[in-house]
Amino acid sequence: MLEERTVIDTQVAIVGAGPAGLMLSHLLYRAGIDNVVVEKRSHDEIANTHRAGILEAGTVQMLAETGVDGRVLSHGHEHEGTVLRFEGESRRIDFQKLVGQSVWLYPQNEVFVDLAAARERDGGDVRWEVTDTEVRDLTTEQPTVLCTTKEGEKLEIRSRLLVGADGSKGICKRQIPQDVRTDNFIEYPFAWFGILCEAPPSAPELIYANSQYGFALISQRSDTVQRMYFQCDPNVNVDDWDDERIWTELQRRIDGPDGLQLQRGPIFDKTVLPFRSYVCEPLRYGNMFLVGDAGHTVPPTGAKGLNLAFCDVRVLAPAIIEFFGSGDERGLAGYSAKALDRIWKAQNFSYWVTNLMHVQPGENPFNMKRRRGEFETVTNSTYGSGYFAESYTGWQDRT
Amino acid sequence: MLEERTVIDTQVAIVGAGPAGLMLSHLLYRAGIDNVVVEKRSHDEIANTHRAGILEAGTVQMLAETGVDGRVLSHGHEHEGTVLRFEGESRRIDFQKLVGQSVWLYPQNEVFVDLAAARERDGGDVRWEVTDTEVRDLTTEQPTVLCTTKEGEKLEIRSRLLVGADGSKGICKRQIPQDVRTDNFIEYPFAWFGILCEAPPSAPELIYANSQYGFALISQRSDTVQRMYFQCDPNVNVDDWDDERIWTELQRRIDGPDGLQLQRGPIFDKTVLPFRSYVCEPLRYGNMFLVGDAGHTVPPTGAKGLNLAFCDVRVLAPAIIEFFGSGDERGLAGYSAKALDRIWKAQNFSYWVTNLMHVQPGENPFNMKRRRGEFETVTNSTYGSGYFAESYTGWQDRT
Repeated sequence: MLEERTVIDTQVAIVGAGPAGLMLSHLLYRAGIDNVVVEKRSHDEIANTHRAGILEAGTVQMLAETGVDGRVLSHGHEHEGTVLRFEGESRRIDFQKLVGQSVWLYPQNEVFVDLAAARERDGGDVRWEVTDTEVRDLTTEQPTVLCTTKEGEKLEIRSRLLVGADGSKGICKRQIPQDVRTDNFIEYPFAWFGILCEAPPSAPELIYANSQYGFALISQRSDTVQRMYFQCDPNVNVDDWDDERIWTELQRRIDGPDGLQLQRGPIFDKTVLPFRSYVCEPLRYGNMFLVGDAGHTVPPTGAKGLNLAFCDVRVLAPAIIEFFGSGDERGLAGYSAKALDRIWKAQNFSYWVTNLMHVQPGENPFNMKRRRGEFETVTNSTYGSGYFAESYTGWQDRT
Repeated sequence: MLEERTVIDTQVAIVGAGPAGLMLSHLLYRAGIDNVVVEKRSHDEIANTHRAGILEAGTVQMLAETGVDGRVLSHGHEHEGTVLRFEGESRRIDFQKLVGQSVWLYPQNEVFVDLAAARERDGGDVRWEVTDTEVRDLTTEQPTVLCTTKEGEKLEIRSRLLVGADGSKGICKRQIPQDVRTDNFIEYPFAWFGILCEAPPSAPELIYANSQYGFALISQRSDTVQRMYFQCDPNVNVDDWDDERIWTELQRRIDGPDGLQLQRGPIFDKTVLPFRSYVCEPLRYGNMFLVGDAGHTVPPTGAKGLNLAFCDVRVLAPAIIEFFGSGDERGLAGYSAKALDRIWKAQNFSYWVTNLMHVQPGENPFNMKRRRGEFETVTNSTYGSGYFAESYTGWQDRT
């Protein structure tokens, strides 16, 4: 079949302009490596998708020190610790004291906005709202992206290396044949009900709360807008939950002898976040490499999703730069294994914290009491709380 | 019904002459508190029941510093660390370096022999091989034990306080009415196949080994006799396992690039150890108090069973002494809650290590890979390995 296509030749084709794809594009640009990014959504659609907002120090460094924008430092909030709360009793984990690290509260969509602005400022080739995207010739030296631009132009983007950064529902990983791909996957019998509301902060740091009614996370966004979540049935209908019911549910999950009260205000966004853990192995197929959610997803409990995507980029970008610089393929050859080492640690942390803090439907009461013992063991011990802090802040002394 | 009974009046009646019952009897004797112990088994039957042999420092102290016997120090082996092995790769957890504590390898039946000898030396009243044991009047100020001695004499032991130390299948906890007792219980889909063999040690310290074939524990007993275990189906028939098959199974679970080889020798004992976690709440009913396995059982993985029983005694003995000394009941009133705090921590540790090191039948491969991430997180981190060491050695800086 003959059809008219505009051919673009580039060094690296990147499918997906979320934070992972844009960060990689930005780093490659800074190293003088030509790249093109295609994205099926519009800029504004991504910018308006509310996501988690805890950034590890390594993530903040990547934004602040590579010339993306200093907004993360000026507008983000440094959190030197977090609170674990069990049946109304709070214990603070002091990250700074334990591991000399902080995390930053800065929403993921702001990270996206900063990255997109930097790419535009630097003349990056990012095509929004493309359709009919296909990838092909992945095992050749010219992996190619086909797509249609929003203006209707058909593109053929010929690259030397192709990166799949197209998220958990993306097309890239599905191109890896079943016989060389392992899909590691578990589901959880609950989800998170997330809200945004107009209210002052209820607490200076995040509160991860476990109660007999289930988990709740009291988080912040700004001085006037807050983000909170509570464990819910995955099939919940958000329309069944008015403000009053939501506030009652959140409050009873944090009630305790210290009298902690949530600052209430109008709720203007309600979303249900699914809980799944997934890892694609390997993260390379021919000359295609997967980064971020395109290769793995974590439940939100450990705040690892975006940070893990940036870790992938931190391994892949230098490998690509080395490859185009000296022809040395060792970095590319080692990418999958090196990234997976950290991914499995993060998967375990996310799984652990999820299980520590949530109530399983129909659960054996033995486990609720056992977790209380776990909470005591972790929070009453420097080693225990250090183990938590080290994982939460992202094992900063190691890649 | 009239029947002839010999009445014995004592301050404390203890049902069960395992290590927990005898240790309590010994401590009460040293404080001048009269007590009588009854036990359905013979001395030799208990002495020949092979059990785990890792003693926390606090347990060793109780034996060595209360005049039981110094054999634990002269015949036991101090272990300053232990080895976690994953898919053939060993990582040592250095207890001394991390928490300044050791554990001692000294079999539980030797602990029993020493305690029984101390009780005999000190003229303790321990009745072996009693039958038809009953406890009654537990909520009165004269809780009573009825039993028949091995000579056929019927006894009525009237006490002020009664202690149930009669193990996981004992009669005492069943006297707590269902409406005031909570049985917290979980089962595991596997058991341990334990062997004793005539061979030199294969390693200087315990090796907890995880492999695709399941868990194995390489333990020691003496210079010439060794104890080893491997995860098995709970319905396994030991007669289906000859020496050759057992050695092949054990060896493949520890095979690795370091070429670790088990020292083989004739196997002279084979037992299957069930895996269950159980906690009775509360541990007090009227004037009856439960200690050790009579109130709670742990799977053997964390080596917590005997140590936890001694911890109970360490809380209960001073409370009883205080009660008879000054009439102060606060120690007795607080016994259950104080003991349970530690029991739930130990339950969690046992559960955690069991799940970290075992393979579940039909398990989702995601979890096997996740546990590899957990192994790396724990063993590559001072906080992680300190968290393990602190729990394994028994949180020595706390009760």
